[in-house]
Amino acid sequence: MPFRYERPVRFADVDAARIVFFARYLDYCHDAIEALFNELPGGYPHLTMVRDIGVPSVRVEVDYRAPLRYGDVALIDVTVERVGEKSITLRHELTRKADGVPVATVRQVVVTARLSALGGIPVPDDVRALLARYG
Amino acid sequence: MPFRYERPVRFADVDAARIVFFARYLDYCHDAIEALFNELPGGYPHLTMVRDIGVPSVRVEVDYRAPLRYGDVALIDVTVERVGEKSITLRHELTRKADGVPVATVRQVVVTARLSALGGIPVPDDVRALLARYG
Amino acid sequence: MPFRYERPVRFADVDAARIVFFARYLDYCHDAIEALFNELPGGYPHLTMVRDIGVPSVRVEVDYRAPLRYGDVALIDVTVERVGEKSITLRHELTRKADGVPVATVRQVVVTARLSALGGIPVPDDVRALLARYG
Amino acid sequence: MPFRYERPVRFADVDAARIVFFARYLDYCHDAIEALFNELPGGYPHLTMVRDIGVPSVRVEVDYRAPLRYGDVALIDVTVERVGEKSITLRHELTRKADGVPVATVRQVVVTARLSALGGIPVPDDVRALLARYG
Repeated sequence: MPFRYERPVRFADVDAARIVFFARYLDYCHDAIEALFNELPGGYPHLTMVRDIGVPSVRVEVDYRAPLRYGDVALIDVTVERVGEKSITLRHELTRKADGVPVATVRQVVVTARLSALGGIPVPDDVRALLARYG
Repeated sequence: MPFRYERPVRFADVDAARIVFFARYLDYCHDAIEALFNELPGGYPHLTMVRDIGVPSVRVEVDYRAPLRYGDVALIDVTVERVGEKSITLRHELTRKADGVPVATVRQVVVTARLSALGGIPVPDDVRALLARYG
Repeated sequence: MPFRYERPVRFADVDAARIVFFARYLDYCHDAIEALFNELPGGYPHLTMVRDIGVPSVRVEVDYRAPLRYGDVALIDVTVERVGEKSITLRHELTRKADGVPVATVRQVVVTARLSALGGIPVPDDVRALLARYG
Repeated sequence: MPFRYERPVRFADVDAARIVFFARYLDYCHDAIEALFNELPGGYPHLTMVRDIGVPSVRVEVDYRAPLRYGDVALIDVTVERVGEKSITLRHELTRKADGVPVATVRQVVVTARLSALGGIPVPDDVRALLARYG
């Protein structure tokens, strides 16, 4: 069962071609990740700013299937594909809310790391437990 | 004599109305400020990240006169209107490069501050000397 | 009675000084405006993309009072100060949700305009009625 | 011989972890693409806004190797790996200017398309000739 996040396209998200700028898809995915981690006590802010633990990306793949325009709402379904010792593989399926059209698939590999030093650390137990819900 | 900075409109700077998003004008002004402070040794990165000195805004006023579109280049002329003990007043005149049409006037008051603590400090002498060139 | 919009600070909203970038405050205010206009049938997307009516800014004033950091939630209270024939004056009071500290006051004058031609038009009746609720 | 584009990290490009936000790498690559296409008469604005031809992405892969911080300058070397009938494969090698450290590799497949209709069209001859220089 994926984690679902709903993200309306904002007025400034589109580019001169009047479609959501291709880089913005990763901003949307990060919004979804922040929402997912907000299920931890204190949320992603506590994880990152207090516990000094973050999830920098090491690899991202995006397949763009259909454009998003102003007025569209993106549904982002996040599935946890794999949790390794220090890495996490996520898949974001983006669809257009109004008609269910697939918009993009984003595969993302992140590592758990001390943010101050950017050194990898084992996935913390509570993070692992949270992610298990969406595997 | 103002400090001149040239900023082409980027593909993602416009919004769903196909004009540069109103908030982006402040991004443009900050680009100009970074360029201005880059005339110090080590530039704005050294000032902010090594010396821990920054210029947070306390007041901004924008008069929007004409839209910018993709393909336009904004000329930003920065004039230092006033340097107080701990504050600096800047005026940014934005014009469209192709035809000189006035695009916006931005008045900005910043304070010099320790970035780690956000406490105000006197304008450093080298910053004062730099700003005197554009007064 | 103002229109209230809640905007959590996102991970990428802060700058190298670790506070929300000064230009981002205007992005936040626009998010609030989009939410306000979403009370019209079809929302702001219908108003702008179908009816070709938008509200470009002609003047913006920001007073910055306290920084926002990652983990903060901004409350944005939008009051309609004045509705003229073709212009609207809005005041956005931003406070920090956790402790009620005033963060910024943004005064914004917009005009109602045909977006394709950017020509001013009288404030439409339904827009006027919506705004009257928050005056 | 790749096309080289130099992009200083801006003050607002970093996130709460004080490194350039992972989505921003795609913004940097687009800046490089705009600069590359600016070698056509009228540049990318003429191609997109007048000739109605753009290059929407269909696939992007990013390998992140090292962080970028405020004060760093990214060198982006764009190589044209393949030009098909309607698609173009680009590789962006990002390195840190000061020490040559590899920062990221971005592989991007775009299609040439009418922007108004988003329908694929054959790669125009002048675009093909431009791309051949960086193959």
